[in-house]
Formats: sequence, structure tokens, C-alpha cells
Amino acid sequence: MTRTIVESRTKTAIIGFDQPFCVIGERINPTGRKKLAAELEAGDFSTVEKDALEQVACGATMLDVNAGVVYNSNPNPNETEPPLMRKLIELVQSLVDVPLCIDSSVPAALEAGLEAAHGRPLLNSVTGEEERLEAILPLVKKYNVPVVAISNDDTGISEDPDVRFNVAKKIVQRAADYGIPAHDIVVDPLVMPIGAMATAGLQVFALVRRLREELGVNTTCGASNISFGLPNRHGINAAFLPMAIASGMTSAIMNPVRPQEMEAVRAANLLMNNDPHGAEWIRHNKPATPEGEAPAGARGGRENRRRRRAS
Amino acid sequence: MTRTIVESRTKTAIIGFDQPFCVIGERINPTGRKKLAAELEAGDFSTVEKDALEQVACGATMLDVNAGVVYNSNPNPNETEPPLMRKLIELVQSLVDVPLCIDSSVPAALEAGLEAAHGRPLLNSVTGEEERLEAILPLVKKYNVPVVAISNDDTGISEDPDVRFNVAKKIVQRAADYGIPAHDIVVDPLVMPIGAMATAGLQVFALVRRLREELGVNTTCGASNISFGLPNRHGINAAFLPMAIASGMTSAIMNPVRPQEMEAVRAANLLMNNDPHGAEWIRHNKPATPEGEAPAGARGGRENRRRRRAS
Repeated sequence: MTRTIVESRTKTAIIGFDQPFCVIGERINPTGRKKLAAELEAGDFSTVEKDALEQVACGATMLDVNAGVVYNSNPNPNETEPPLMRKLIELVQSLVDVPLCIDSSVPAALEAGLEAAHGRPLLNSVTGEEERLEAILPLVKKYNVPVVAISNDDTGISEDPDVRFNVAKKIVQRAADYGIPAHDIVVDPLVMPIGAMATAGLQVFALVRRLREELGVNTTCGASNISFGLPNRHGINAAFLPMAIASGMTSAIMNPVRPQEMEAVRAANLLMNNDPHGAEWIRHNKPATPEGEAPAGARGGRENRRRRRAS
Repeated sequence: MTRTIVESRTKTAIIGFDQPFCVIGERINPTGRKKLAAELEAGDFSTVEKDALEQVACGATMLDVNAGVVYNSNPNPNETEPPLMRKLIELVQSLVDVPLCIDSSVPAALEAGLEAAHGRPLLNSVTGEEERLEAILPLVKKYNVPVVAISNDDTGISEDPDVRFNVAKKIVQRAADYGIPAHDIVVDPLVMPIGAMATAGLQVFALVRRLREELGVNTTCGASNISFGLPNRHGINAAFLPMAIASGMTSAIMNPVRPQEMEAVRAANLLMNNDPHGAEWIRHNKPATPEGEAPAGARGGRENRRRRRAS
């Protein structure tokens, strides 16, 4: 049974087929958040603090920390991102006790995050690009951490799921060359917006199943991408997550502050038998409906009918 | 590609892997509804009329019609159910134009319904019980209709999904002996309450996949049974349906008047690529969020980041 172990200083989380779905809070990310980007450049970390506390309070298993802000005063992220990443990691782990996911496209920022992080963070990410494989896999090995593997390569993001599967397979094989086991690779099969590609959902469900059955790896995704550009995104996300989970997805980078999506994840945990005695479900919901109020058409009715026939 | 054709006088619905999920409205069923049962015995059909119109307005693909009321004046359903079923079928098809599902444990009531129904109704149901196979399959053949096959037999309902699969297989084989094709069998693998059996969800997902891949049949279930006895049943149902659909389930007997479950079904149709151009989803939801309001953490952000690196 594949298990990816992530740790903070005091907490262990397991990503695995027999575990509750791992919710990786996406909020600490200045990409596309102009206000947050300006705050970070100005040394104001109040939004980060709020996002860290709120996401954990809402049930995030881990927090993603992305320092990808382009400073107006210095447009070179190779210079600005490593110290900012270090600062963010130190700040976040002083506020919350969940394991972290160090998220950057700048290898030096990833290493700065690795140096600053307690425990065993998740590194986000390597891809199938040659340069990226050679820059990131040695870090993964050196710090003995698990890594997110995104299934694009030097040719870009293929719309063909077989190509994306093969990129993931290549990354797993290259990692093995470094002595990194498959259970420390968390593959992101890439979720396309369903509004742009009608088969995007089917592709993910099929890919996740193959990745699990053929490569034995855990999986993740940027879940909200599925609904990009469409109305009522939360309604789409809240169906997508249970469908991905039923197909074998074991984590997602998502917004844990959204109640509709989090309820869907908790229900999926219950339905996958990863919520012992339904304790988490019951804790988050009201007392049970009295039996007399069960809907008429429930299969319980069928049972009653069958008993009637037998008598 | 398996397709089960059902028809009213004017409308055709297809149950199939490449079709929108078939929502079979469960409300017209006096089992467990004392008020409705009393109304039916008194010849008052106002609730049935309301339930028929409301379910279709809410998006039901078909309506289940169950006449399983035990009269206080006559406790023998073999006498009371056939005329009541005929009356209900005539009434419902005078009000709405969707195909019907004739639901009874009394063979004479099924035949009365078959005589009264226009088009090609779905018969609900046969089981693996010998007596039931011999009573129902000749009706299915005679009227050339599809039938729901419930996977219990003379030994009862097994908790072992392999046994339930084998019961379904036996029914398909017995039907073939009568010249009834597999595409006219809609198997109900039986949904247990997750509160009573923690593996109930996993069993259904695995069974639906096997039934589809190994027997090539469509599937249905009494969906709300999964959440029986637990709090926030709609939250559980709204995750269960997309998970079952991702596993290959093609229809369910459910309450279409519940908006949370119906939204989940519509989202699942979109995600299974069974909602061309997202037209149904968009029709039921508000205009798209302006692009600038897309959440920061969406994978769109990752794309931005990658472009930044490339520049």
C-alpha cells in the first residue's frame, strides 16, 4: 500500500489510498493575487498569517507555500524568491503545526524552503523537463523528501493522456535512478479546464486510475482548474473531487476555506471507508434525522415491501 | 456501447455509458408515506399529481410508479395493487410525458402497469429468486421491455459483493435464455447504508465497474439508501452520486426535487463529457465569473508562473 509520509515538527500526515484525502491548502500563493504580492514586497505578512490560520481551521491537512511574487523593485525571482520563501516557511510553521508543501519554480527557493522547513515537507515540484529533473531530483534525494511530479515535459503539456502518463512514468524511473522510491512521488496528471476540453474530467479519472494501478503512486492536482471560466465553479469542484477520489486520487491542492468542496471531500472520505465510524462526518454535521423522516423512496422501503411479501 | 431504450408515448430516453445520467424520480411510492397511502386508499390522487409534475419540473428523466399500499379495507395486495397500478400509470402519463418505471413486488400489478403504459416502460424489478425469475422474465419478454435486476436471491442479500455480482450474472444469463438481451437488463447492485456497513460505498463503486466491464450492463440503485440514519444525508448523497457515476453507474432511483443531489448529477454529467458544450450546466447556473476573479491558486497560476520562467 503506497504511503507518502509528510511531517511538520510535531505532526505526521500520510498521503495514501487508505487514508483520508489530503487537502493541501492553496491560498498562500501570490500568483494572480496582486494585493498579496504588493504586501509581500512591502514586508507585510498579515494576509499570509490569516490564510495560514484560516486554512488549518477549515481542515487543511497541509499548506502549500508559494513565494512566486515578482518584485517591482527587482524583477529577478532567482534573487528575491529564496529569501522570501525562507521567511514564509518560518512564519507559517510558527503559526500552524501542519506539514508544508514548498512550492516554487525557482530551484534556489525550493532549497531555501527545504533548509527552513521542519520535519519532512513535500516539494512542489519536478516536471519531466530535463533541466528540471536535473535540478530538482538531487534536492529530493539530499533532503529525503517527497515530491510532486507534474506530467509535462520539454514538449509542453500534452492533450493526450497517454503522453502525460508516459511523462509521469519517466519521472518515476528517473527518480528511481537517484534512489528515490515511487511512494515519494506524488504525480499531478494535470487538470485541464473542462470548459476548454470536454474530456478533461474523463482524462483525469482514467489517468489517476492508471497511475495508481500501474505505477503505484499517489496523486494530486490543482482541483479548481477543472471549473475555470464556468459558472458556479464550486458546484463543479464539489462533484469533481469525489469523482477523482473514487478514481483513486489521494490529494489535491485546493481552497479548504470553501465549505462546499470541503463537505464533498468529507463525504468522499466516508464513502471510501476512510472515516472510521463516520466520526469526522458526524462531528461536522447535525444529529441524525429521526428514522421516521427517512424519505419514502429509500431502499429501506423496498426492504419493508419485501418483508411484507414474505409474511 | 450498451444502450437501454425507454419510451413514453412521445419521448425516448436512453440509459447508457455515453448518456446523461438517468434520474428516475422516486417520489410516487406510498411505502413509508402513511399520508399518501391513506390518500390512495381513499381515491385521492392529488399528491401523486403534485409529485409527478414537480419531479419532472425538477429534471427527472423518468418517473418510478409504485402502488405498494396495503389497504386497511383489504390487506391482500394481489387484489388491490393491480387496479391501483393501472390507475396510477394512466394518471401519471396523462400529466407528464417522461417514460415510466413500473415498480411492484406483485407480478399482477406489473402486468397491469405494462398493459396501461404507453411506449416502452422500465419494469422494476426481477431478482435472482427462482420464483421471481419465473414470474417476471416472461413478462419482460412478452412486452419487450427493459427490466431492473436486483442482485439478491433466495438466500437474501449477501454482504459479499462477489455473491451479488454472481446473482446479477445469473439473472443476465437467465434473461438470455428467454431471448432478453443484456442491454435490456439494468442491474441494481444494492446499496447498503454506509452507517451500517463501512464498505458499502467501495462495494458499489467496485461492483458497478465490474458490472459494466464484465457484463456490459447498465446499472441503477436506490441512491439515498447510502446515507440512511446519518446526519446531512443530502451531503452524503451529493458525493455518492458523482462517485457512482465516475465508477460507471448510469441511472438511479432518487429524489429529483432535492437541489443538492441534482446539482451533483448535472456537474457529473459535465465532467463525464455527457453535457455537450456544458449547455445544461450553464442553463442551470449563473453567468460565468469574470476571468479576473479566478482564485489565485488555480492551476492557471501555475501556467503563469511557468511562462514567467520561460521569459
